[in-house]
Amino acid sequence: MSFAREIDAKAIELSKHVLRMTTASGSGHPSSALSILHIVTTLMRRVMRFDPKDPWNAAADRLVLSEGHAVPAVYAAYADLGGVVGRDRASARSLSFDDLKTLRELNSPLDGHPNPAEGFPFFDAATGSLGQGLSVAAGLAIAARLSRTDRRVFTIIGDGESREGQIWEAADFIVDHRLTSVTAIFNCNGQGQAAGVSRQQSSEALAAKMSAFGWTVRTIDGHDADQIVAALAPADKPIAVIARTVKGWGVDLLHDQSNHGKPLTEKQLAAGEAELDAMAVKLGVRPGKSDLPLPAQPAPAAPPQQRSLKTVPFANAMNDAGLAPAVEKNACGTRRAYGAALLALGKADDRIIALDGDVSNSTFAEYFAKAIPQRFFEGKIAEQNIVSVAAGAAAAGYIPFVSSFAKFLARAYDQIEMAQISRANIKIVGSHAGVSLAADGPSQMSLHDIAYFRSASHADNGRGAPVCATFHPSDAVAAYHCTWLMAAHPGMCFLRTHRPDTPILYKADTEFRIGGSHVLATGDALTIVSSGYMVHVCKEVVENLAKSGINATLVDAYSFPLDCAPILKAAAATKNRILVVEDNYIGGLADAVAIAAAESGGFRVYGMTCKRIPKSAKTPAEVLAYVGLSPRDIEFEAKRLIG
Amino acid sequence: MSFAREIDAKAIELSKHVLRMTTASGSGHPSSALSILHIVTTLMRRVMRFDPKDPWNAAADRLVLSEGHAVPAVYAAYADLGGVVGRDRASARSLSFDDLKTLRELNSPLDGHPNPAEGFPFFDAATGSLGQGLSVAAGLAIAARLSRTDRRVFTIIGDGESREGQIWEAADFIVDHRLTSVTAIFNCNGQGQAAGVSRQQSSEALAAKMSAFGWTVRTIDGHDADQIVAALAPADKPIAVIARTVKGWGVDLLHDQSNHGKPLTEKQLAAGEAELDAMAVKLGVRPGKSDLPLPAQPAPAAPPQQRSLKTVPFANAMNDAGLAPAVEKNACGTRRAYGAALLALGKADDRIIALDGDVSNSTFAEYFAKAIPQRFFEGKIAEQNIVSVAAGAAAAGYIPFVSSFAKFLARAYDQIEMAQISRANIKIVGSHAGVSLAADGPSQMSLHDIAYFRSASHADNGRGAPVCATFHPSDAVAAYHCTWLMAAHPGMCFLRTHRPDTPILYKADTEFRIGGSHVLATGDALTIVSSGYMVHVCKEVVENLAKSGINATLVDAYSFPLDCAPILKAAAATKNRILVVEDNYIGGLADAVAIAAAESGGFRVYGMTCKRIPKSAKTPAEVLAYVGLSPRDIEFEAKRLIG
Repeated sequence: MSFAREIDAKAIELSKHVLRMTTASGSGHPSSALSILHIVTTLMRRVMRFDPKDPWNAAADRLVLSEGHAVPAVYAAYADLGGVVGRDRASARSLSFDDLKTLRELNSPLDGHPNPAEGFPFFDAATGSLGQGLSVAAGLAIAARLSRTDRRVFTIIGDGESREGQIWEAADFIVDHRLTSVTAIFNCNGQGQAAGVSRQQSSEALAAKMSAFGWTVRTIDGHDADQIVAALAPADKPIAVIARTVKGWGVDLLHDQSNHGKPLTEKQLAAGEAELDAMAVKLGVRPGKSDLPLPAQPAPAAPPQQRSLKTVPFANAMNDAGLAPAVEKNACGTRRAYGAALLALGKADDRIIALDGDVSNSTFAEYFAKAIPQRFFEGKIAEQNIVSVAAGAAAAGYIPFVSSFAKFLARAYDQIEMAQISRANIKIVGSHAGVSLAADGPSQMSLHDIAYFRSASHADNGRGAPVCATFHPSDAVAAYHCTWLMAAHPGMCFLRTHRPDTPILYKADTEFRIGGSHVLATGDALTIVSSGYMVHVCKEVVENLAKSGINATLVDAYSFPLDCAPILKAAAATKNRILVVEDNYIGGLADAVAIAAAESGGFRVYGMTCKRIPKSAKTPAEVLAYVGLSPRDIEFEAKRLIG
Repeated sequence: MSFAREIDAKAIELSKHVLRMTTASGSGHPSSALSILHIVTTLMRRVMRFDPKDPWNAAADRLVLSEGHAVPAVYAAYADLGGVVGRDRASARSLSFDDLKTLRELNSPLDGHPNPAEGFPFFDAATGSLGQGLSVAAGLAIAARLSRTDRRVFTIIGDGESREGQIWEAADFIVDHRLTSVTAIFNCNGQGQAAGVSRQQSSEALAAKMSAFGWTVRTIDGHDADQIVAALAPADKPIAVIARTVKGWGVDLLHDQSNHGKPLTEKQLAAGEAELDAMAVKLGVRPGKSDLPLPAQPAPAAPPQQRSLKTVPFANAMNDAGLAPAVEKNACGTRRAYGAALLALGKADDRIIALDGDVSNSTFAEYFAKAIPQRFFEGKIAEQNIVSVAAGAAAAGYIPFVSSFAKFLARAYDQIEMAQISRANIKIVGSHAGVSLAADGPSQMSLHDIAYFRSASHADNGRGAPVCATFHPSDAVAAYHCTWLMAAHPGMCFLRTHRPDTPILYKADTEFRIGGSHVLATGDALTIVSSGYMVHVCKEVVENLAKSGINATLVDAYSFPLDCAPILKAAAATKNRILVVEDNYIGGLADAVAIAAAESGGFRVYGMTCKRIPKSAKTPAEVLAYVGLSPRDIEFEAKRLIG
């Protein structure tokens, strides 16, 4: 048989497995899977260089299935190759056709959508929330460039999915950074979930758009293996393959629009398979017999190696970043110290890369960008993309720091959640958080972020780490050391920094830890707990209270998941009274302390948070007063708590 | 003078005000403002039909300044017209040139970025987080079509800003819905914040892209008023004007890249003004003298009128939606009841519109879509856009319901926050939340959403309402009535629904309220508090506990900001013991109860939340066991709490 007929035969054979596994699971998207089986089979049997027995090989070509719900197609093709599944090399085993029927089961590596963390290492990132795969592919391509491997990265994107703006952010990014190793394959089957795909996502429209975005565009019949192979030949520019396909190819039973995400019933299954047999007869092929070769092997390669992470002393790093005068003046914001730490880290460890969204001169990623431009990737004003790019680069062993204003990162929360599911080792840095930003106003202030990130910090990622460890340092020393902690910690972290330049509170060699806190003052009347910028405000309050003979303990609780035991212990020495002060909406520190206090019982906790939508004002002090967080407000509540 | 020279003169005059006001405020973005002053002046003096004395006129043309940081340009042009500012008609007054120097002050209507809620009603939505204005414009255009007014909607978008994917989502949406009343003006000054704008956002690239997206494209010199007027002439397709401009036009002092977001110093101000004077001489114009006419007046029009919102009885509405059999079988999910309520609301009130992201057959917005297609707007797979479109439509008096999977809405959280700042009366509905989704796996499960939305529910929007009221109903009756509550409540709301079909717990005419809860069982051993799907699991637990002689109180706490007093009162009758159970990450119900308990003191509260990243499994029960929330787990903790 010709190669194209071989692929037809293989696609038909695997289509039957797709029907069976989705029927067995009672859920899944067989019609989407059937539309990409020629593409998947051609990629995995002819085009991609990889070893199904070693999916961890860092030189192998990669496939990112952006259209995650079509995953049964890849599961079937991978089982056909006896590909290795397992969470690590120790538990590795070959996937068999029999395993396919465990699709979506609790103990199966075949999750409902691509999920490498559950034991399918052929993939690099969890997908299924749409529009993120092209960015992940870009991240893998960045890593390949840094690691000097010639791996290619293919991604399959649904036509309907290409409506997601992130696809276009990624398309720009890939051209900006000349990531020609990325190939985007648009699966144009014309059907969405609720209705047909818009004409704005027709194969013609997508071809015109990708061309306007600067890509080489090749439109093909996505069920013709010869055309697929030709379209995937490398070019000088990144390639967009516009593949016209049929949803539910070969199975009329699946063609109807209403069949999105519906498997055949047990009763329909035989008829579905018979349809595929008839298609085989029509095409003159015999499924089950295959002369297709195994994929070509890549040269083995190793991911970037871990170096020692010996912390550079604070003073040296600040000096190196040009911040010695700021330290001298005792006015140095947490965002600046983050920049200094990132620079020091970048010099100490080649795995560290940085991404930013056109605000590196505000987040202070610019110190790194200027000193180590080859590992800095400017994402421009497109936050969703840089988060998913980071997840891709992390999958290849890099440690990406992604920075923007904390407020703007909120548009990438779904991407952050997908990175959490991927267990991506990425570090997210949100600057200008809270109301202390003042003049720029609420459109730039992040107020929900603490609740959001704390939420993830209290769940386990299955590898003994929080889903996302969170840091909210109050001064430059704390921000500096927390950044180092983040780099050393294997798992997602979030760092929240502020705009104002603030005094330094800690000795340069103070130790910090995930979930840690420090006592900054000790009293007997009440314990005030705060973090970030508000620690400075609370310090003022403590000093004021002392003038009226009230001695308060002040705790800087700079990290989630917060270890509350030391705080409750401190509060036990202040008549069990705790006042918590935050510059964000509810859901953060006050909650963490209250949960711990209410679990143990016997404490009185009062939380102060941002109680109204802020607005512009000239100074942080004015906004603090506006939202009920002035020193006077805090003093009032402290005295009320004392009673 | 010719019209173009008149505009030159006006732009120069207003540029001086921009310099002065930003210098006075000590912050702001004069260079961006100067790049759009010809466009703004031409729009506001020649093209737009509006009455500066009545910015609330529902027939007037609108300007959405997507590039929010350039707002001093609009403030200056509006002051020049004596435009009316104020939070409502009662407090309305004319803006003067003197007022401009209050830019960014606490008591000024001139917030750092466009912020209609602080008293600048010329705008419809807060902007400043970039990439959202074109969607807002689309929402205004939808409203105009429904209200049968011929208002045009202009939006100014920065070139760097057009990197945001949402711009391209909006571009598709506007073509899909033939919203030819929208005109997008791209301000191509070539400079971003940290560096120059990418070639991917050059005027040529943007022209090619917008053309590929199906728009009429007109490239002009953005400082030539004649060209601006010509480019803004209506066309059959929506128009994209690609305006080549100069950042800091007329003021060399501002041209340098590093000047983004930096006003002139007091010392530089005179030199800046002198540069503008020199420009006037060069162009042969005399700033300060103007023969420009006032804008053309639109016909007065009224926004859509409020009708009575008499609740349709549950049974009637369910029957109308075809759900009588589901009710009969006692298996009807909250998402279905939402669909029935939306349909009933749509029939009862013309202000109700619905938007969905290609999942209306999952969220059950489809009942509305089929019955009232003229008020249903399919947004396809692009969640950011539909949220901002809703904000735009709400500004024109409509009540939009926006639905998708709760998980996918996380990519629109920044858009939701901007809508909060706008005080947009929009209703957000997230389906398939929590771990009960099971088979589809974590990429489709929303776990952070409760923490996120609760966070906003506890702050005040300045109009006596929560920033976002949140509902998490446990059964069809509750979901039905909560949807009606949302429609009647003037302010943002979030509704969280689940996939599974569950039994009905409430009588059809039960009353619900914001912050409310209901006691479903009364005991003496402990109080179990839950919401949504977990209420059913807890009900099973309560029944099991009863078998071993332990009588628990069960509270369904379905709304935030939660009124905790009744819960603490109930708990007082159960020895002050409270167990809270949630199917999401921490930050929600347990926190709310713990905060209240710890404030009052004397209670013991233990919270159970989703403790690890879930995965696929065949049934909700399997996933619940996997994440530590099975009935057995809950029973164990209940007994432990009793001691």
